[in-house]
Amino acid sequence: MAQKRIVIIGGSAAGPKTAARARRLDQRALITLIERGPDLSMASCGYPYYVGGVFDSRNCLIETPTGVPRNPGFFLNAKNIIARVNCEVTTIDRAQRTVTCRNTLTGEVDVVPYDKLMIATGSSPRLPPLEGIDLEGVTTLQSMKDADYLRAIRDERRVKKAIIIGGGLIGIETAEALQLAGIEITIVELMDQLLPFLDWQLAKLVENHLKSKGVNVLLGNGVAAFTGEAGTLTGVKLASGTELPCELAVVAVGVKPSSQLAKAAGLEIGVTGGIKVNHFMGTTDPDIYAAGDCVEICNCITGAQTYAPMGDLANLQGRVAADNIILGDSVQFSGTINTGICKIFDFAAGATGLTEAAALKAGYDVETVVNASPDKPGFMGAKLLVSKMVVDRKTGKLLGYQCTGPGDVSKQVAQGAMAIRGQLTVAQMMDLDLPYAPPFSLAIDHFIASAHIMDNKLKGRMSGISTRQVREMQCRGEKGTFFLDARGPDEFEAMRLGIGEVLIPLGALRKRLGDLPPDKNHPIVCYCKISLRGYEAALILMDAGYTNVRVMEGGIMAWPFPREK
Amino acid sequence: MAQKRIVIIGGSAAGPKTAARARRLDQRALITLIERGPDLSMASCGYPYYVGGVFDSRNCLIETPTGVPRNPGFFLNAKNIIARVNCEVTTIDRAQRTVTCRNTLTGEVDVVPYDKLMIATGSSPRLPPLEGIDLEGVTTLQSMKDADYLRAIRDERRVKKAIIIGGGLIGIETAEALQLAGIEITIVELMDQLLPFLDWQLAKLVENHLKSKGVNVLLGNGVAAFTGEAGTLTGVKLASGTELPCELAVVAVGVKPSSQLAKAAGLEIGVTGGIKVNHFMGTTDPDIYAAGDCVEICNCITGAQTYAPMGDLANLQGRVAADNIILGDSVQFSGTINTGICKIFDFAAGATGLTEAAALKAGYDVETVVNASPDKPGFMGAKLLVSKMVVDRKTGKLLGYQCTGPGDVSKQVAQGAMAIRGQLTVAQMMDLDLPYAPPFSLAIDHFIASAHIMDNKLKGRMSGISTRQVREMQCRGEKGTFFLDARGPDEFEAMRLGIGEVLIPLGALRKRLGDLPPDKNHPIVCYCKISLRGYEAALILMDAGYTNVRVMEGGIMAWPFPREK
Repeated sequence: MAQKRIVIIGGSAAGPKTAARARRLDQRALITLIERGPDLSMASCGYPYYVGGVFDSRNCLIETPTGVPRNPGFFLNAKNIIARVNCEVTTIDRAQRTVTCRNTLTGEVDVVPYDKLMIATGSSPRLPPLEGIDLEGVTTLQSMKDADYLRAIRDERRVKKAIIIGGGLIGIETAEALQLAGIEITIVELMDQLLPFLDWQLAKLVENHLKSKGVNVLLGNGVAAFTGEAGTLTGVKLASGTELPCELAVVAVGVKPSSQLAKAAGLEIGVTGGIKVNHFMGTTDPDIYAAGDCVEICNCITGAQTYAPMGDLANLQGRVAADNIILGDSVQFSGTINTGICKIFDFAAGATGLTEAAALKAGYDVETVVNASPDKPGFMGAKLLVSKMVVDRKTGKLLGYQCTGPGDVSKQVAQGAMAIRGQLTVAQMMDLDLPYAPPFSLAIDHFIASAHIMDNKLKGRMSGISTRQVREMQCRGEKGTFFLDARGPDEFEAMRLGIGEVLIPLGALRKRLGDLPPDKNHPIVCYCKISLRGYEAALILMDAGYTNVRVMEGGIMAWPFPREK
Repeated sequence: MAQKRIVIIGGSAAGPKTAARARRLDQRALITLIERGPDLSMASCGYPYYVGGVFDSRNCLIETPTGVPRNPGFFLNAKNIIARVNCEVTTIDRAQRTVTCRNTLTGEVDVVPYDKLMIATGSSPRLPPLEGIDLEGVTTLQSMKDADYLRAIRDERRVKKAIIIGGGLIGIETAEALQLAGIEITIVELMDQLLPFLDWQLAKLVENHLKSKGVNVLLGNGVAAFTGEAGTLTGVKLASGTELPCELAVVAVGVKPSSQLAKAAGLEIGVTGGIKVNHFMGTTDPDIYAAGDCVEICNCITGAQTYAPMGDLANLQGRVAADNIILGDSVQFSGTINTGICKIFDFAAGATGLTEAAALKAGYDVETVVNASPDKPGFMGAKLLVSKMVVDRKTGKLLGYQCTGPGDVSKQVAQGAMAIRGQLTVAQMMDLDLPYAPPFSLAIDHFIASAHIMDNKLKGRMSGISTRQVREMQCRGEKGTFFLDARGPDEFEAMRLGIGEVLIPLGALRKRLGDLPPDKNHPIVCYCKISLRGYEAALILMDAGYTNVRVMEGGIMAWPFPREK
């Protein structure tokens, strides 16, 4: 068998994965990995934690777990892979099946032939074309160089104020990192919420947590310009006209696929700007594959093309591409369900599948449940989880699941992702056999409890109202609704919303029905701390003939607005 | 509609759940909950943590999260449920549809009529009929009374030595609790391993961890008699003849279903001794339902009848029974996949589905993978996970998954349970879209990595050998196998097995093929720390023509035996 020549462009995540897997499948192939920058296999998702001082050794980002630097020597010795760094591929010649490389240090040019080519050129940060964007002090957090720059700022302790532009995953991770360095942080976000993988209400809980840690959050506002003196950043001018002084600005408004090289070679580019690939990770040229942040992939739920630049998907795609490069098209990549997670100080926030907003936009008839309840028994040090489950009314299948809070969010979101992958219905999620013991979960796990509430809603046993809707009624000064807080007097004394609610403890409700409005069609909203007692109160009222009774989902624990107490 | 009379026997888990759910579905029903003991809704899975001092307030076990005792007053006020404690049901008259109750304090007897009856009589500890079992100092940990007794022993600090009989979940949880109280603990287990929901090798890792915490473990040994003086325990005589002095013995050899009452009423009892129920949790009498530790249920994987006395299942079953009692048979309980988890000092151990041993016994043609790798990146404070995946070769579906170690076991086992419930195949588990960020997981999650290894094995790219098999070769003094350690010299210096292995670092292997046995059919076993480099070494050797190359799965991290270094 002739030695297969495999050339891989891009040395970050998908590229090295493809190279390593290809080697495992074919000991004889000539595998060349070409990277424009100086480093290989950088753990780029770890940059914010290096910047924030979670660990101090920069080498951790570019070494194997046993401390061997993943440099060209390592790739050659351990994997028999030729890795070229500081080497940019300038053109792909599909007819000749060659790539032209230029050494970025020496300018030397050479041509490398391939039998199969892999494009893993990754992404680049979106940089709005604003005045002052080239000022010293304006940066992104996308490269080792950026990480070094921000880490030095952390260590030098000279910067007092920084602006983070963009409230997505990277923006929030960077905000935490720099805030831990004692820098006063302001996040500026164009949308009316942080973290778009969450629906508004859960994002509001994250915003509150950030603010409780001293981070400023400005929503619905963009940056108009960066201002500076002598080439150095001194402030940011917002679209609203406000000027914020700062010595550092981190632009984190997302990334865009680096698909120019593929486009120039005549490969088809998808609607999102990513390289178009089939389920085998093949491009429109049968000898060229692509994977990672430079491609667009399929959303498994909607079937739509989507751009999902995530490190885990890049690795999985790279492995699939390698199998097909070596063995012929035989292994498929299923696509994404847009699962993500983010640490936010003592919180985590994660999501999988579609938000309610995304599901409605995609045309689904959805039902949702907001569930606020602990991750384990109180006596084991329970921490709160606030989650939202989104299902398709037509099929009963889970469409999306999001979760935030100080509790074990990661497990909940993993369960949601597995449920979507297994195409589970509400009925199937209601009696899951999950690992239960008090150190790890409640007897009825938070996820299963959400399915129970969902079933009650789908069967018409409970009608829900969101805390946001209640807040809007409050803000509009609407007086027409009777708010029933079903907790005990001590709890009411310690904490209460102050939205004109009436306290009727659940245990007293059956005897105090006379305290309710006489009109059985009067709108009533019941709640308690987490709205379990609120739900039981609603059932009593419905049985008493009230026709317009709703439960405020998640109760006070899901209320992200100011309280009276 | 006439008021439905619902009588529920048993006030622990399934009973109160049925009562509460029935009330939510029917505000008018007359619901009576009858409990033999003094307490209701005891958080019995929390007993070991109360004994161990994780929390100090006994009330936590019998109160709602807001601190209200779940006593008859609470049930009446909050739920309009009549709860009778210290009240034993002595007979069920199915013809008359009545139960006869006896107050255990006063001896008073009365008869309660029902339209629908729920049996949730739970389980009782298995107590071997041994000499001395009634001695003061011999106990179980099944009731609030037991918990009080052991907690007092903890607080008084008088007991120096205790024996735990049985190395299952309760035995191990109790061992930890008492060891934390400064008591010298010995676990005596009849089988050749602890925790039967694990295969032997993973159980051995748990055993090692217990020993590292100072707990003695005696396997393959039973108790012949309890010895005492003046009615008080002074020691335990083992089947092997050894006598162990101790002041406390906790019998934790499992529980048996309390199905006598049902049996006496002529209801069908299953093969496991539990009450036979259908998927609606109905017994052979259409007016009688049963749930919890007193019933036997279906194993979803094998279809076999099984006994699974777990608190989470009891709650789920109770909810299903309530739906069917109130609404007519309409909601089904799917059965169990025998998911369980247990905290063991700094470890957790959990499992779902079938062990390899159970799968083989059930007649499956299985393939297995042992995977030892971290739960997240090293720079984020990675902790080890050692897992075993069991799949059905015929269908490619996951049959079982078990995991132990200091890492995030709970999430891994939850993922396994969800995969079994979703009937996922290896191909589907290979590109799961799970929540990835460095604080929570590796870019390729441990679970997905196991699926990758499984795929390699199923496709014949890797042949595995367990650490146990290697150990047996070592113990038998077999010299015929070439053991190749593919790590670096520093690693070898710091830690090594000492089984006659040859160190050939992976990076040097291609140039040192001459150091291998000349016979291409010579048995070779490759490994490294976790056997990723071991696998790559095996691939190089197979390409060089070696025909009998195996990888020691999980590497040194899955080696539970003594090492040279």
